[in-house]
Amino acid sequence: MEKLLVFGHKSPDTDSIASSIAMAFLQTKLGNVAEPRRLGNISKETEYALNHFKIGAPELLSSVTENDNIVLVDHNEADQSVENIEKAHIYMVVDHHRISNFQTADPLYYYAEPVGCTCTILYKLFEQNNIAIPVDVAGLMLSAIISDTLLFKSPTCTDLDRTTAEKLAKISNTDINSYGLAMLKAGTDLSSFSEEELVNLDAKVVTIADKIKAKISQVNTADIDEVMTRKAKLEEAMNKDVESLGLDLDLLLITDIINSNSQAIVLGSHANLVEKSYSVKLENNTAFLKGIVSRKKQVIPVLTSNAE
Amino acid sequence: MEKLLVFGHKSPDTDSIASSIAMAFLQTKLGNVAEPRRLGNISKETEYALNHFKIGAPELLSSVTENDNIVLVDHNEADQSVENIEKAHIYMVVDHHRISNFQTADPLYYYAEPVGCTCTILYKLFEQNNIAIPVDVAGLMLSAIISDTLLFKSPTCTDLDRTTAEKLAKISNTDINSYGLAMLKAGTDLSSFSEEELVNLDAKVVTIADKIKAKISQVNTADIDEVMTRKAKLEEAMNKDVESLGLDLDLLLITDIINSNSQAIVLGSHANLVEKSYSVKLENNTAFLKGIVSRKKQVIPVLTSNAE
Repeated sequence: MEKLLVFGHKSPDTDSIASSIAMAFLQTKLGNVAEPRRLGNISKETEYALNHFKIGAPELLSSVTENDNIVLVDHNEADQSVENIEKAHIYMVVDHHRISNFQTADPLYYYAEPVGCTCTILYKLFEQNNIAIPVDVAGLMLSAIISDTLLFKSPTCTDLDRTTAEKLAKISNTDINSYGLAMLKAGTDLSSFSEEELVNLDAKVVTIADKIKAKISQVNTADIDEVMTRKAKLEEAMNKDVESLGLDLDLLLITDIINSNSQAIVLGSHANLVEKSYSVKLENNTAFLKGIVSRKKQVIPVLTSNAE
Repeated sequence: MEKLLVFGHKSPDTDSIASSIAMAFLQTKLGNVAEPRRLGNISKETEYALNHFKIGAPELLSSVTENDNIVLVDHNEADQSVENIEKAHIYMVVDHHRISNFQTADPLYYYAEPVGCTCTILYKLFEQNNIAIPVDVAGLMLSAIISDTLLFKSPTCTDLDRTTAEKLAKISNTDINSYGLAMLKAGTDLSSFSEEELVNLDAKVVTIADKIKAKISQVNTADIDEVMTRKAKLEEAMNKDVESLGLDLDLLLITDIINSNSQAIVLGSHANLVEKSYSVKLENNTAFLKGIVSRKKQVIPVLTSNAE
């Protein structure tokens, strides 16, 4: 068989990188020639995990051809994959997402389970093939589970993710909690970003209830207080947006991914919509929103129903 | 979890019936409520196998609703599945075909391998879950492997199919060769079928290269000439399907399971795709396809690559 190229989705997260590396290793042990690839830049969180376990990042891959024989991990949808994916031969998929916008001309290996992380499924494949997982690869796989499940706190986390993480922690001699917190924290290192960049890292401008023009931005952190030391400058950046974009509401969510809460900074003439929506009182333009982490599920629909 | 309905493709073959029964048994052992179903009539070959191992046929299923929780075996394409498949919740798929025209809203279990028979993959799932296969279920699973691989002669047959069949033969105390020949021969008695029935005994409607709607039917025989005495009436039945289903291509393979060749009858506006694909010339809508026995491996991908 020709060489297998193994890669995860665009804008790769830790699972996409870890499962590419682990799968390429597994395929090599099974007698195939296989190499991991990545479809984009390594995040700070992933960089922390790679450095910790002393593994190099995969080479960048920008496109495939009809001569390529590929293994997809952590995704299947063409939109999320490499350019010209439809031309390549797909040998195998290992994934934990819905199946959509995916098709093949030939039968293939496809292993999917509705678990929190691709590496949880990969662990099973190592077991079934009686291949031992090296210490460094195990550590990277553990990092992926910690990342995808936010240290087992995400609603996507299953018992199998947790027990698999415990086995990988044992192999890699890792303290899940202290390492996991440090890794997640590395991913939330916002120090290199300006305040203007922070309010635009992950931002959406929406019109609420056909009348309120709102910008809703979000930054993830392990330490709300640290971000809040930059409150004055963040407000300055937000006020500029209120002016230039003609916003009625500018809401910045500083989300604590460890404890699953957000601190909101709220500006604009309709700031009181946030007070009404979450039964909170803004003090100096800010309020704590307990349990609120999802813009899509917990913010936009709530603001909409309270604005009507 | 609600009850799982387990079923194979329309025009069920022995693998679709056997894997439904085996999977429903496995799910029950795993603590779920699961029942096998069938999407069409039982073939004579399958009837022979069910009678031999004293297992009843699954109930007929004509449609599903948004309340149904389903497991697909031996297929994934919506065209080959139950009515309203897009409304149901798909819990799991176990299959050995290409993936096409398949999508879900949620993550799911999907186990596919490019082997000759779904029951070969199912055997692995029994093993991985440490569930013993009862004698009768093992016999039925063996029947499916014999059927799909034409007693290991089909190019789709892998080493894993063969070794799995040997294990199932041991469990079910079956002489593979004598039982297998008797079962395959039972399936080639076509005398009681009308021509309309013959072209639907084992039929798949597929869309080739996103543009050609094709029906590919197959009948197994030990005597091609005998079946070809009915050519005029077979063409009549096929022409009706071309009209009613809006087919661009209607291909009937009359497969000699002893010598592993097929006689093709080809109708539809894209009949020349078959000529191009196999370098043959249709005469009176028919051509001999030497060594062609597998729709999955030797027909669908070949037509697909020649249509692009």
